[in-house]
Amino acid sequence: MHTISTLQSLIGGRWLGAEASVPLHSALNNSLIYHTHAEKIDFDEAVTYARSTGVPALMSLDFQKRAACLKALALYLMERKEELYAISHLTGATRPDSWVDIEGGIGTLFAYASMGSRELPSSNVLHEGPALALGKNGGFAGTHILVPRGGLAVHINAFNFPIWGLLEKFAPSFLAAMPCIGKPATATSYLTEAVVRMMHESGLLPAGALQLVIGSTGDLLDRLTGADVVTFTGSADTAAKLRVNKNLIAHSVPFTAEADSLNCAILGPDVTPDDVEFDLFVKEVAREMTGKAGQKCTAIRRIIVPKQHVEAVGERLRERLAKIVVGDPSVKEVRMGALASMDQHRDVSERVELLARGNEILFGAKDGFNPVGEGAANGAFFSPTLLLCRDGMNNDAVHDIEAFGPVSTMMTYSDLDEALALAARGKGSLVSTLVTKDTAIAARAVPVAAASHGRVLVLEREAAVDSTGHGSPLPQLKHGGPGRAGGGEELGGIRAVRHFLQRAAVQGSPTMLAAITGEYVRGAAVREGDVHPFRKYFEELQMGDSLLTHRRTVSEADIVNFGGISGDYFYMHFDEIAAKDSQFGKRIAHGYFVLSAAAGLFVSPAPGPVLANYGLDNLRFITPVAIGDTIRARLTCKRKVDRNRTDDKGVGQGVVAWDVQVTNQHDELVASYDILTLVMKKG
Amino acid sequence: MHTISTLQSLIGGRWLGAEASVPLHSALNNSLIYHTHAEKIDFDEAVTYARSTGVPALMSLDFQKRAACLKALALYLMERKEELYAISHLTGATRPDSWVDIEGGIGTLFAYASMGSRELPSSNVLHEGPALALGKNGGFAGTHILVPRGGLAVHINAFNFPIWGLLEKFAPSFLAAMPCIGKPATATSYLTEAVVRMMHESGLLPAGALQLVIGSTGDLLDRLTGADVVTFTGSADTAAKLRVNKNLIAHSVPFTAEADSLNCAILGPDVTPDDVEFDLFVKEVAREMTGKAGQKCTAIRRIIVPKQHVEAVGERLRERLAKIVVGDPSVKEVRMGALASMDQHRDVSERVELLARGNEILFGAKDGFNPVGEGAANGAFFSPTLLLCRDGMNNDAVHDIEAFGPVSTMMTYSDLDEALALAARGKGSLVSTLVTKDTAIAARAVPVAAASHGRVLVLEREAAVDSTGHGSPLPQLKHGGPGRAGGGEELGGIRAVRHFLQRAAVQGSPTMLAAITGEYVRGAAVREGDVHPFRKYFEELQMGDSLLTHRRTVSEADIVNFGGISGDYFYMHFDEIAAKDSQFGKRIAHGYFVLSAAAGLFVSPAPGPVLANYGLDNLRFITPVAIGDTIRARLTCKRKVDRNRTDDKGVGQGVVAWDVQVTNQHDELVASYDILTLVMKKG
Repeated sequence: MHTISTLQSLIGGRWLGAEASVPLHSALNNSLIYHTHAEKIDFDEAVTYARSTGVPALMSLDFQKRAACLKALALYLMERKEELYAISHLTGATRPDSWVDIEGGIGTLFAYASMGSRELPSSNVLHEGPALALGKNGGFAGTHILVPRGGLAVHINAFNFPIWGLLEKFAPSFLAAMPCIGKPATATSYLTEAVVRMMHESGLLPAGALQLVIGSTGDLLDRLTGADVVTFTGSADTAAKLRVNKNLIAHSVPFTAEADSLNCAILGPDVTPDDVEFDLFVKEVAREMTGKAGQKCTAIRRIIVPKQHVEAVGERLRERLAKIVVGDPSVKEVRMGALASMDQHRDVSERVELLARGNEILFGAKDGFNPVGEGAANGAFFSPTLLLCRDGMNNDAVHDIEAFGPVSTMMTYSDLDEALALAARGKGSLVSTLVTKDTAIAARAVPVAAASHGRVLVLEREAAVDSTGHGSPLPQLKHGGPGRAGGGEELGGIRAVRHFLQRAAVQGSPTMLAAITGEYVRGAAVREGDVHPFRKYFEELQMGDSLLTHRRTVSEADIVNFGGISGDYFYMHFDEIAAKDSQFGKRIAHGYFVLSAAAGLFVSPAPGPVLANYGLDNLRFITPVAIGDTIRARLTCKRKVDRNRTDDKGVGQGVVAWDVQVTNQHDELVASYDILTLVMKKG
Repeated sequence: MHTISTLQSLIGGRWLGAEASVPLHSALNNSLIYHTHAEKIDFDEAVTYARSTGVPALMSLDFQKRAACLKALALYLMERKEELYAISHLTGATRPDSWVDIEGGIGTLFAYASMGSRELPSSNVLHEGPALALGKNGGFAGTHILVPRGGLAVHINAFNFPIWGLLEKFAPSFLAAMPCIGKPATATSYLTEAVVRMMHESGLLPAGALQLVIGSTGDLLDRLTGADVVTFTGSADTAAKLRVNKNLIAHSVPFTAEADSLNCAILGPDVTPDDVEFDLFVKEVAREMTGKAGQKCTAIRRIIVPKQHVEAVGERLRERLAKIVVGDPSVKEVRMGALASMDQHRDVSERVELLARGNEILFGAKDGFNPVGEGAANGAFFSPTLLLCRDGMNNDAVHDIEAFGPVSTMMTYSDLDEALALAARGKGSLVSTLVTKDTAIAARAVPVAAASHGRVLVLEREAAVDSTGHGSPLPQLKHGGPGRAGGGEELGGIRAVRHFLQRAAVQGSPTMLAAITGEYVRGAAVREGDVHPFRKYFEELQMGDSLLTHRRTVSEADIVNFGGISGDYFYMHFDEIAAKDSQFGKRIAHGYFVLSAAAGLFVSPAPGPVLANYGLDNLRFITPVAIGDTIRARLTCKRKVDRNRTDDKGVGQGVVAWDVQVTNQHDELVASYDILTLVMKKG
């Protein structure tokens, strides 16, 4: 038994709420489990706290340190996950459903910790180069930087994923140095409150980085400015209402919406009932209909199949659905749990009624629905429901009305174009699945589907082994679709962090741009000293430290010897006759010889702080090197990233990128590239 | 003299309009010069034409072909530019003002033609990789593609740049395969009509690619869907009104606003009246106040100077402003023309009155304003007007009220933080200029300013030589700022094209992803034949054509010989003792040897279709190669781009990128990279 308690908001660093207000009920048996609090939230306090405490605290860290903080937080939560599973049970979720919410959410923290560490600088300025020369004299250039906006993020979430919903938004906005105010949907806010309590108790987050609103957002949105952002996950109707908030409009506050939509799965015209792919399709549809009791904004609502296979698909789907035991997930056999609340139950029932007008119900409550578990008769259980629409092109309801439960409508098509037209009738969806064996069908259909879907999954036997499934947004991939799906973009790797930053173009002299971006820009002032830059420790090295090497004349013997060692006897290097007819009119040195000779010019042979050259980027061979040409290299410290890492032996090291320019006797650029090294720390 | 004629809309491929409606007047003398047309536009026809004719016509081309089309169009317009200059004169613009609008606009077409050709594929799917493995068995991966949205773009423009305003939006949306409906501000729509007429007459554009609305947009916005986009340049108020259009909100139609804002210039605390930079500041401010008679959304409205220099700046600005002759630009001495209309004149006068309350007028009409030219007394001429606000932190008007003319307010600061706080009071602006000699000041101030400005210009003597100026958006750099500036993003290089495309995540087997993206993905099926891929012409080569080379055992002699030729005697390769203590525990081969030996393995020595290896990307050394290891390479055709180019001799060629994987005897990846080549065409 669960003690009935009052949920609290976390505002201004303190938990607020003692007096009970709105009652919240278990999805399993409708018993009273929590109340929201009656105390009014002072949103001026919340916003002021985020701005005056949260922003400076986050800005006192850098991208790398915030990434490390996310990782520590993820580890902390993972240790306490079972407490969350226990509470999640009350929402009607099965263990796999809860896994998506809890471990999917914590996994998203891990993923952003890792992406942040790999891809972001150890400062608060993200250079989005390359810098471009903007004049003929080399004194003026332009580039872009992404910087923290200096404002806060309001994250408004849906009831279906109370943990993942918060964390998938929190992680990238936190990396972007935005304090966050989370506002979960009231129905399941007790689970969000539980995870926020853990995050707060961890002591790992900077003060002001996270606040929680239980209940209404009051006048919160009226207090935001252009530096802030709002993200919203929920119904398209609510998104439309919030988006036109006068204050948000007046200040162009970015508003990212991710609305549930009428996602579809298409069975390709090439797949027959004998194919493995036919069963893959049926399995995927059944799984998406029943997982989380169909309460996923990505769930398959429209099943688009070739006319000739409609009976076969229907038959196999019915078989699968009939086997799924619905009830309290604490009963071992149960495979599908409850809707989140009786309110949802009423809502889904009404919409099924609308969908059933003029369409057949192939599977539904009449097929022996009998949820198991104590008090299940009072719980928010809903039968898996499969409808059939015989004329999808002339039916609006099946493309417009979303029953947010285990409900899906099958419709038929004659050819691929019609299938794609049906898919597009959703007016913009989060995701679609195409099951096909044929690469030509995929190559034709996916770019068309991509115009109206945020994600497209192509499924066949090869992919099926590892497939993460139709319904699962991944941190690495974009989540969000156009049109009805809200037009927003979340996740998608480091893109999500960029969305929370502000991009600005910056113009000035290369020296100024280097100082601003923290990254050497060609033409900027360099620093040449007595010490070879490769002999400096990470802490000693400064962006702009530079070495202009001695020279080397390239001879015919170099070409011959290099060919002998590499085995590269390309005519351009070895065949006087053919080389004469070539674009360069003569034999030239191997590009890789130039690269190797440049390393020979700038390398410092004895052991030193530079541990390894692990990569090279953006190599361009610009002017060919002919026999008799004399080359030299300029090596300049371009970028330092302190990932706060140590090697196996506990020696600290950082990443250093070097700009290399190889020139010839006419000071023409011969080759241009960046090399990537690991450099030891002194301390 | 100009004949009074009725302007026409271009709808459904036909010019529409004969009956006169709203009269338009010359800015120079208020004489009647044009009428808008009275005929109502059928916006259903316009939208239907764009969707059913424009979209297919644009999609029948690819990115490269559309880029070529833009270039041809730019050349065509450049030849007829003088006709446009003649009409532009009527807007009150000087020749330099018109240059920005006309040649700036045509230059933007050139710039996008060139960027499109360099950076976009010869298909309609832009792969935004890399593809990421999403499972342990290699059968499932994910990536992103950007595809044309399948809808149309409505571009609503301001009166100040009737040509540039259209073309800077048209160019990237055209590349993105969106038919465009342009709607210029009525006051100067005659100039937009003139350029659209030329574009139409050129015959270079696909049918339906461009339509023009003279007059109101009627119910156009109500007809758009989630596949379409709207861009708007103009006042913040109008942006706010249009943005909440019910239909746009219901369909999440992307709405990009670029609103005029109260941009600022900051004189750095380090600059003294004796510095060159002091005069650079004064000159830049005066130029931005008077260029285009101050009718630029980027113009400097707020001049932020150190308290101790306010008198000196004021004095020098007054001197400069006093020298500027205002009047009809056909008069030789004239340096500043008219506002665009008498309506604008009234509007600016009213706002100056509001700004003057409690502030001093340092320079204004009383300082001998007397515009020159025939009928100038009736023209929309306005005196350059400089105000001084002594307490900027406690004055809202100077940060909120924008007089869209040659009007600017000076304010003072005590320290850099106050200067930045004043800048931020604009609540989001398009651009700010910082004049400083000190890199430390720039490094501290610019990231702060970047949070509330779309572009930041840092000016000192080095940059000044080539500086394009505070007020000039460039195709390469982002245009648009947060908050009051509308929160939109335009231009910024190829980013602008991406904004008009739809991004989708795609998941599936590597083979499927390769087929969809047109780019080889590791793990996808490859094609191995009898013919070495380097012996195939561009047309014959197919993505996935692959060669697995013979093997080579790396010996101690290789290391010694490679060191001798390159001169690279790094201890990791040559010092048994130090190498033993290193991370690898033994001597290893040079990374560049591995690269060179791989080339030796896959190169095909005799002359053939592969003309040159001009670059290399994303090289990573993954596993070290020790003495005795045996390596081989797999070379796979990754990506083909047909830029429709020929070399000097008229031989066609295309760009081919190759995926290279070097592995050792344990099939471990040793090195991984892409090489870039030019490959000859057969035909």
